[in-house]
Order: sequence, then structure tokens, then C-alpha cells
Amino acid sequence: MSTIVQKYGGSSLATTSTLCDIAKRIANSYRDGNRLVIVVSAMGNTTNDLITLAQNISSTPPLREMDMLLSTGELVSSALLAIALNAEGIDAISLSGAQAGIKTNTTHGKARIEFVDPKRILDELDKNKIVVVAGFQGIDQEKEITTLGRGASDLSAVAIAAGLGTDICEIYTDVDGIYTADPKLVRDARKLDEIEYEEMLELASYGAKMDPRSIELAMVYQIPLTVASSLGKTPGTKIHQGANMDSKIGEIRNRVRGIASDTNVAKITVLGVMDKPGIAGNLFQPLAESDISVDVIVQNTSSKGYTDLTFTVKRTDLNNALKVVNSVAETLGSSAVSSTDNLAKVSIVGTGMRDAPGYASKLFNTLATANINIEMITTSEIRITCIIASKHVQKATKAIHEAFELAE
Amino acid sequence: MSTIVQKYGGSSLATTSTLCDIAKRIANSYRDGNRLVIVVSAMGNTTNDLITLAQNISSTPPLREMDMLLSTGELVSSALLAIALNAEGIDAISLSGAQAGIKTNTTHGKARIEFVDPKRILDELDKNKIVVVAGFQGIDQEKEITTLGRGASDLSAVAIAAGLGTDICEIYTDVDGIYTADPKLVRDARKLDEIEYEEMLELASYGAKMDPRSIELAMVYQIPLTVASSLGKTPGTKIHQGANMDSKIGEIRNRVRGIASDTNVAKITVLGVMDKPGIAGNLFQPLAESDISVDVIVQNTSSKGYTDLTFTVKRTDLNNALKVVNSVAETLGSSAVSSTDNLAKVSIVGTGMRDAPGYASKLFNTLATANINIEMITTSEIRITCIIASKHVQKATKAIHEAFELAE
Repeated sequence: MSTIVQKYGGSSLATTSTLCDIAKRIANSYRDGNRLVIVVSAMGNTTNDLITLAQNISSTPPLREMDMLLSTGELVSSALLAIALNAEGIDAISLSGAQAGIKTNTTHGKARIEFVDPKRILDELDKNKIVVVAGFQGIDQEKEITTLGRGASDLSAVAIAAGLGTDICEIYTDVDGIYTADPKLVRDARKLDEIEYEEMLELASYGAKMDPRSIELAMVYQIPLTVASSLGKTPGTKIHQGANMDSKIGEIRNRVRGIASDTNVAKITVLGVMDKPGIAGNLFQPLAESDISVDVIVQNTSSKGYTDLTFTVKRTDLNNALKVVNSVAETLGSSAVSSTDNLAKVSIVGTGMRDAPGYASKLFNTLATANINIEMITTSEIRITCIIASKHVQKATKAIHEAFELAE
Repeated sequence: MSTIVQKYGGSSLATTSTLCDIAKRIANSYRDGNRLVIVVSAMGNTTNDLITLAQNISSTPPLREMDMLLSTGELVSSALLAIALNAEGIDAISLSGAQAGIKTNTTHGKARIEFVDPKRILDELDKNKIVVVAGFQGIDQEKEITTLGRGASDLSAVAIAAGLGTDICEIYTDVDGIYTADPKLVRDARKLDEIEYEEMLELASYGAKMDPRSIELAMVYQIPLTVASSLGKTPGTKIHQGANMDSKIGEIRNRVRGIASDTNVAKITVLGVMDKPGIAGNLFQPLAESDISVDVIVQNTSSKGYTDLTFTVKRTDLNNALKVVNSVAETLGSSAVSSTDNLAKVSIVGTGMRDAPGYASKLFNTLATANINIEMITTSEIRITCIIASKHVQKATKAIHEAFELAE
């Protein structure tokens, strides 16, 4: 008898009708003899609706209170799914993050899971119940309710799989797997049957809609993830360790696995910064304290003791970032701050690119041939990312998809 | 420095705008130097909306899951009120029933409070915070979330006042106090400045919109309650012990304090029941097990070993009650079951009626003069209730209000 952790996203639970469809699927899997732990997101737009309520009241609501507020979304969906499963004649129980033993640190709004105490979940499974866990949330040592950050129900699912010591974790969503590129941008994007953790981590970090922390955690605990549609019957994409794939697929494997794209990019340039130790820290420390992630950073060669610092942030963080940067620019000796908000990132990802030269030049040539200017470049061992104008993102993705023959 | 427990109902919190108005009132009271514990209901129609969601899925949702679901309504309003108070510049924290130390038994849907552990509330008050507690809910020994029954946020407030040992408990609602009769029925109904616990208990049990258990608990712990409008500035009605009132007001006090009316009444008659010991138990036990409250019971004199049993239930319980009664009628030897669903209760209440005869006859004469037929009668020491046709409830209430000179 297998213990399976399944996670269902908000679009799969948008209405009581779709929620009942999901309950039927789960009921069938239970009748097949599986022990099931179901992790749920909030229904449809619930989380955004709750955020809007809070913003009607205050532009700076305490994060602790936001966690109290937002955690209710998953409590509602977990209780309703348990009700639907009981209506299918199956004994099911919903558990809050606290009841499910999701223990976190105290960082409200983006708490880290410290460990999962699986006792209660195991007790309920031993009573032949389906356990429905409210995702996205946990509890800290002081019994305060915490949330794990947007999209973190995936993370809850992986953490529970790790806590239970099971190696079947299925992420059900509104797409039927991981594609070589965003199918909205590239019509002949191809669904991947499998992908390595590291590759998926880069794709998720650079644009694919999945919480990178859940991939990371799955990689650490070596839990294979399956990403599939909550409605369809196709097998989806398996995210797992590379060793077996390498031995199976060998040389014929395309070394570029997929393309990530992301249009939520803005660029800030701090002009004429003093070129001396500590300056970068003086700039990026307050940004980090304001919870603004800085992505690509480029520093020009120093000229007469002064340099220009350019970096990218999410476009949605640009206004807050500019406030912070303007407030410290003078102390850095900077003469001016400029910004651009219409940028995008396009990345190629693949573990096969490691130790295999030529990918970068092929990528740059492809963009040049398509007449697309590259603003900034950043790389990891298995990823090359170009910052380009956001208006070119579809053209760029199509051209790269074709150049690397990803449709085949 | 006084510790004050205030409770705000759902209509006071129906929108973020009214919620912010309430926050301003509370902030002013805090700035006056009070230690404040605020107990909240769910916003507006939230609880009904959640019930509708569950009913879309199942006609028999498990009570344990309904508690999980419904408890979220008060979590949302408590977090939003804490956010609004912080926006007013005041340090405020929301607590779930569990965090606030509301310990209950395990009866989901209508749990009883066993005790309140006030440690966390006191800790937060000592940090000069306003504590906002989610009403209507608690936690049992197994850390399961329980709810206390509809309208039970009043009960949460009284229990917290008892747990804290404070004697200031203010119930803010959408009416500005307790009236001699429902002002919607009797235009010259008069707001009472004060009323005794026992009287209020009878009024609440027989139609006034207040949770009788909260009155009972306040009476046990001798906590005076103030019922007032959350918007107005009038002093409201004080519900407290009678001794002082008697000595102050003495003989001039009207012995009928108020009139309760309730149109949610239906009647069931079980005809030709065997008249032998145990029969009533066989009928009322399964009704109790189905959670149906039986109110007035009348048994006719036995004729040839058979009798007719008539009793009232809430009209909203009638269909369920009939199912139960029909399923046991045959075993009782009954020949038929009949029912009427268009009835009402009208009651006069007053501790001064104790040991003072003549009230019943005056009541019956008043109804007779108004040409209103009395279907059933039931009394307590301080209350007389008549069951009448619901179409007559306004005429009856007006006539009684006038006959007992309650407007003066």
C-alpha cells in the first residue's frame, strides 16, 4: 500500500463544482488501495481577495496579521474538500498546517519550514482516513500562525512527503506538465516526460510557474515530483534526479532542456558610485532589508574612482526599490539614479550544457539574427540568461526554441 | 486602569469601511487609558456564505469539518480589525479562539466552554496591546477546532471577561439596547436602562436576539453586561443582578419588564398515542438525538388508554422533526401525525410577576379582547408564553404592550 502526497492548486478548486470533481478523482485513487495525503491551495482568487480586503484598510498591514488572515483561505478549501470526500462515502479529515505538524521559523509572510512532525497525519492515515492538509501555512514555536510565501503549497506537499518518508509526490495544476517553453509564447513547445531537479530549479527560478523552494527541497530529500493536470489523464512530467536519465538517454539527449521566460523585470542604474570596498553592501543591504530581491548585477569598469552599478529587480518591486536606492544614493557619492521597467529575461537551461561550450555563442547569435538587443547577461553552470526588451520576449523564445531544436 | 471586554457583531463589521469606524471607536477608548479585549463575530453574512458553500457540496457535512470551515469567518474579521487598529497607530494583535485559551468540550457545532486560560491574553495586554479575539470558537483537548453555536460570540466575550476576572463586558450590536418589545412590531416600544439577568434570560430564550447562554454565564459569574449600539452614543441597556434594582426602584417598578415574540414556531400533534410509561421518552429521545429542541409540550387527558401529544419545535426544524416523529409513530401505537407551521410565541417576562397573581388572566383577557385565539400556554416563574397564529403576532404584541403600560 503506497502513501501518496498529492497537491491541488487553487484553479483546480475554484468552485464547489470543480472541487467535487477533484474529490471524485481522489476517491478513485483511495479505492485503488492508496494511503492519501492531499495538500490544497486556497480556492481560486481567495488569497488575492483577502489581500485586497487588508489593503482597503491599510497599506502596511502587520505581516503577522496578514498570516492570520491569509491562512484562512487554505482552511476553507481543506474543510470543503474533506466535506466533498465524506459525501463520496470516504472518511476524510482536514488539518490546518498547525495540526499537520508543519513547524516553521517566525518569519511571517515567508516562513521557512524547520521540520514536519508527521504524528497526527500518520494517526489519521492509520484510521484509513484521507488526510487533507491546508497548504501554504505552518506554526512557529510560539504557536503563531505563519505562511510560507506565495505558491508555497507545493512546498508544503514536498515537506510532508519528506516528513512521511514517502517518495510519491504529485503536483496537480492547470497545465499538464513542464514544457520546453511557455506554450503561450511558442506554439510547438513540447511537454517533457522528465526533467532533472537542477534544470527545473533553474526554470522555476527564471520564469516557470513553480515554487523553486519546493524543487530544492525535493532535490535534497530525493523525492521525485510529478507535475500533471488535475483534469486530464496524461502522465505529466516527472522531476527527478539525473543519473538514471543520463544512463538511459545518453548522448541522444538534447543538452538544452527548456526555455524560461519572465517579463516581470526592471533595471536600475546607479551612476557615478564611488569605487571602494563596502559600497555594494551599502546599497544592497537596505534592499534586502526591504525584502526586495536583486537578480542580475553588473558593475562597469571603474573610471577615475567612480563606476556605474546596474541591477535588475522584479518590475512589481521597482517603486519600492527606487525609494530605497534614492535614499542611499547620496551616501554612495552617486550623481544620479535611472531606471527602465519594460524588460524581460529569457533563459536556456540544461545540465548537458555543463562542460559543453558553444551554447552561449549560439544563443547570442540567435538573438542577433532576430535583431534583438541583449541588455545584460548572467549565467550559472547549467543556465544562460539574457535580459532583453519585454516586447521581444515572444520573438526571442520562438527563435531560441527553433535554434536548439526543442520541438523535436 | 480598567480591563474592558467589548464584543462587536457581524453587522458592525460588515464592510472594511464600517470595520474602520469601529477601529476608531476602539482606539479612542484605548487612548482613554483602558486595557481592551475585543471579541468579534464574522463579517456580515460570512457565516451564511460559508454554510452555503458546504451545502453546495453535501447535505450532511461532518460537524467537525463545518467547525474547521466556519471558524475561519472570525479569524478573518479579527485579523482585519487588528490591521485597522495598527493603521490607527495602536499595537493590536488578533488571536484565534485556540490562542486566546478558549478550552471547550468536543461537541462540534455547539461546544461548551470548559474554561478560559487567560495567560496569552494577559501577556499581550501587559505589552500594552489591544487583543482582538476571534469569537464563536475554541479548541478541545485534542487540539481540534470547535465552534460554540450560532450567535455565540457573545458567549466568548462573557467567558473571557470571567476568565480575566473583569466586570466590564460590553456587547455592541446593531440595536441600541433591550426594548420592552420588538420596535419593529410596537412603535412605542421603550428602551430599558436596565434589566435583570433572569428576565433577560427569559426574553432571550423566547425571542429577543441574544444568545441565552451568554446571559446565563454572566449571571453565574455576576458580570454585568451592557448592550448598546456600535454606532450611536446612547448608554444602552445594562443587564445585571436584581438586588440593587429592587432596592432602588422598589414598588414603582412595572412588574412586567418586556415582551418577547418569535414567529419561528411549528406544532406537531401525535394522535392516539398509547398512554403508558416510557412513551414520551421514546418520542423525545430520538428528537434530542437529532438535535431538535422541543419547546412547549401538551398532553391531553387519556381516553381509553390513548392520548394525543402536542409539542412545538422551531419551524426551521419542522421537516427534520416530522421525519423523526413519523419513523417512531408506529412503535408508539399512534394512528396519525399532524402539523401546523404558521405559529408564533408571545411572552411577557418580569421577575416582579413572581408571587404576584393576576398577570396570566390579564394576558389571556387582552388576547381575547383582541380576538386572538390561544393555541397553547406555557409558563415559568417569571414568564407567561402563549402560542398563537403567527399572523396575529404584531396585533398581540401591541395589545399586550398597551395593557401592561410598558411604553411609560
